[in-house]
Amino acid sequence: MDQEAKRALLHKDRQRVWHPFTQMKDYALQDHLLIEKAEGIYLYDADGNRYYDTVSSWWVNVHGHGHSRIKQAIARQLDETDHIMFSGFTHRPAIELADKLIDIAPCGLGKVFYSDNGSTAVEVALKMSFQYWRHVGKPAKSKFAYLENSYHGDTLGAVSVGGVDLFHSTFKPLLFDGYRLPSPLVSEWSDGRPTPEAAESSVAEALEAVRRLFESSAAEIAGLIVEPMIQAAGGMLMHPAAYVTGLRELCTRYEVHLIADEVAVGFGRTGTMFACEHAGISPDLLCLSKGLTAGMMPLAVTLCTDTIYEAFYDDYETLKTFFHGHSFTGNPLACAVALESLRIFEEESVLEHVGNVSSALREQIRRFEAFSHIAGIRQLGMVAAFELYEDAGSRRSYPFAERRGYRLYLEALKEGLILRPLGDTLYYWLPHCTSTAQLEDIVDRTCTVLERLGYR
Amino acid sequence: MDQEAKRALLHKDRQRVWHPFTQMKDYALQDHLLIEKAEGIYLYDADGNRYYDTVSSWWVNVHGHGHSRIKQAIARQLDETDHIMFSGFTHRPAIELADKLIDIAPCGLGKVFYSDNGSTAVEVALKMSFQYWRHVGKPAKSKFAYLENSYHGDTLGAVSVGGVDLFHSTFKPLLFDGYRLPSPLVSEWSDGRPTPEAAESSVAEALEAVRRLFESSAAEIAGLIVEPMIQAAGGMLMHPAAYVTGLRELCTRYEVHLIADEVAVGFGRTGTMFACEHAGISPDLLCLSKGLTAGMMPLAVTLCTDTIYEAFYDDYETLKTFFHGHSFTGNPLACAVALESLRIFEEESVLEHVGNVSSALREQIRRFEAFSHIAGIRQLGMVAAFELYEDAGSRRSYPFAERRGYRLYLEALKEGLILRPLGDTLYYWLPHCTSTAQLEDIVDRTCTVLERLGYR
Ligand SMILES: Cc1ncc(COP(=O)(O)O)c(C=O)c1O
Ligand SMILES: Cc1ncc(COP(=O)(O)O)c(C=O)c1O
Repeated sequence: MDQEAKRALLHKDRQRVWHPFTQMKDYALQDHLLIEKAEGIYLYDADGNRYYDTVSSWWVNVHGHGHSRIKQAIARQLDETDHIMFSGFTHRPAIELADKLIDIAPCGLGKVFYSDNGSTAVEVALKMSFQYWRHVGKPAKSKFAYLENSYHGDTLGAVSVGGVDLFHSTFKPLLFDGYRLPSPLVSEWSDGRPTPEAAESSVAEALEAVRRLFESSAAEIAGLIVEPMIQAAGGMLMHPAAYVTGLRELCTRYEVHLIADEVAVGFGRTGTMFACEHAGISPDLLCLSKGLTAGMMPLAVTLCTDTIYEAFYDDYETLKTFFHGHSFTGNPLACAVALESLRIFEEESVLEHVGNVSSALREQIRRFEAFSHIAGIRQLGMVAAFELYEDAGSRRSYPFAERRGYRLYLEALKEGLILRPLGDTLYYWLPHCTSTAQLEDIVDRTCTVLERLGYR
Repeated sequence: MDQEAKRALLHKDRQRVWHPFTQMKDYALQDHLLIEKAEGIYLYDADGNRYYDTVSSWWVNVHGHGHSRIKQAIARQLDETDHIMFSGFTHRPAIELADKLIDIAPCGLGKVFYSDNGSTAVEVALKMSFQYWRHVGKPAKSKFAYLENSYHGDTLGAVSVGGVDLFHSTFKPLLFDGYRLPSPLVSEWSDGRPTPEAAESSVAEALEAVRRLFESSAAEIAGLIVEPMIQAAGGMLMHPAAYVTGLRELCTRYEVHLIADEVAVGFGRTGTMFACEHAGISPDLLCLSKGLTAGMMPLAVTLCTDTIYEAFYDDYETLKTFFHGHSFTGNPLACAVALESLRIFEEESVLEHVGNVSSALREQIRRFEAFSHIAGIRQLGMVAAFELYEDAGSRRSYPFAERRGYRLYLEALKEGLILRPLGDTLYYWLPHCTSTAQLEDIVDRTCTVLERLGYR
């Protein structure tokens, strides 16, 4: 793109676009990065500079950008139908996708409800759970339990079960009340692994808090929502699978729905197709989005058990209908893309490749141990994270106003690396197409930037 | 499609898919209509039967299904970039679309915030308005006023400002409180027009209710949200432009944000590009979705004034960031489609055509006056509606359990017509590509069905 066209676009961007989750004043003196091309793990800006998309474009991209099979799937679908309403009508892509998802999802999930994004998948789960208890004669079960540091989206229902105060506290007067539970293992990581004892005791403590809450209040609790294995937006906080197994047991024992929000971790990101597999459990409700369409376009699903479905199944006059729907529910284009993505998973042995790259990632991130201002190095599947500390030994953070993570991010861009910060937590959230050579290059570049900024 | 393939798909549909806004038991003995092809105003089922899509696939389709320019736009965009994250990054389709939208939107709206669907566009508007008043030192302005019979989506924030009890009352314990206002002119239509006196007095009454509320409580009210000109899901209730003008005056006088939800009525459906144009006013926040992508795929925007934007623009440390975002914010594919749709509007004089077809529609629906069980015949732009009554003179409804609207819908399918019911309200919500010949055929078929079911 020539410089004038670039300047004109960036001028309009500044004049007319309000970016998400962005303090726009941060871009008063600095441009948003104008992306012109995307291919595989790479993004290219308007000057032709290349960047590693190590965060899979906000955790959505799966098989790399511009995948030819995905493009073909879109073209094929466009020759059949574009969008068709999904109430009274149905179509092949949505049916086949639902069928496929139930085949691969943790067992016991029998029905698929479509919506548009991660937030709506969560809203659907909350509303289904809430209404379910009314239909089975336990309307007092109307509240939700959720975790500290959890993030489930930005619509107000999803915000109500969010546990990141920076994002959520402003809207308090618009939120419904719930029970906030401690999250396990927030700061017990070191050198990529928690000690087994620390992990065990942290899990036990966190589960004990759940047990106490259920013991006193399960009669008022419809469901507990959790991001299994990784609390992502809350800071890439990882917990052992035993925590998820424990939640399942408690939820079953106390008759509380377990709602697994796998919007971020689903579709192989943690090494298994779904994160619940690490724990060998099935939730009552499962929320999926992001990677569902391989990161091409919005689509989401909420899977539920047949038990839940059946509580809504009755004569129309009983008014048990689940009155929820979005205009683009079951969008055929998005469903066709999702189907093709699942075929790629199978036919190209994607999870096997993920296993190999994950092992390499686990090795590679040990290189960060050499940096004295880094701690909490951790990894699961294609995800790895660490924190910057003023004093790593005592876990003393840098002053908030220094915005260390953000400054590292800006510096990394110069190295052709998209290294996203969540405060002073830096992370990779790699697409499955990453090769081990690319991975090494990514870690090399990260070390270069850390070195340059004096974190050694 | 052969019968076996069809049966297999419908079997899977019944087994695994939970359709939106649907009592699934309605489909115990009857199949969902399996659509295999879509072209122009027509849908084709798996047996090759053709149907008029008179509801534009839930009010989203604009230029007809399978439009070649739209297909080409998708293919072109896929060769540049698929999805790119929109925080820290930007791209041409989202910038150009924002620019174009501000050019054509009611004046005074200076910034575009992207999201994924109508519900999120509304959530964004509510949250922006709410947070705005905190930033300008009026945190007491934290509630919202909304109309009886209003529908703004199904996420819990949007449900909180919804006024259709059938959809919304179940979730009451999860909703935030607000002020519900009467909607104007609910039953004052006859023969396609309200009498000028009835319209005037109904508008005056409804506005007086707003004035009284603002007089007593404006200090606690952040915004008033309205579907300008047509309350769609609430029953295709139309009101005169004077009501919208009056709302604008009151909102300005009492310092309350006017939030126009044009998710359904935007993009020419009422005859003008945006419904607010009928009233010659600009809202403080404008929500758009559905027709934005010509009905191809999910995308939404919330436009706001520069005044609102500037209240969030400050140093990061002041924590005034609008912490809202969705993974697929500003999806390049959807933006490219939306841009192409706006080009089609211009280059193919779509609004001019809409003007002609609207006039024909106004004429054609007079034919329903001959049916003694029909009243409330009304029309605006490409939208027309009427009610079925047991006794039209006294406006006595049929018993709820008879589900007259639903039965008419099923009968209309046999006539190749998709005639959607909202209770006993039947309506057309025509795509802009409808020709006058098609329109006549649609009304012919509607009359045939009405006749057959004894509504004469
Ligand atoms: C775990 C989780 N749930 C829900 C969401 C919300 O998804 P969306 O941004 O598509 O609304 C996210 C988004 O990052 C997420 O990480
Ligand atoms: C006026 C209005 N607002 C908001 C919505 C919600 O949009 P969506 O279904 O895309 O969430 C609708 C949907 O019908 C609507 O008619």
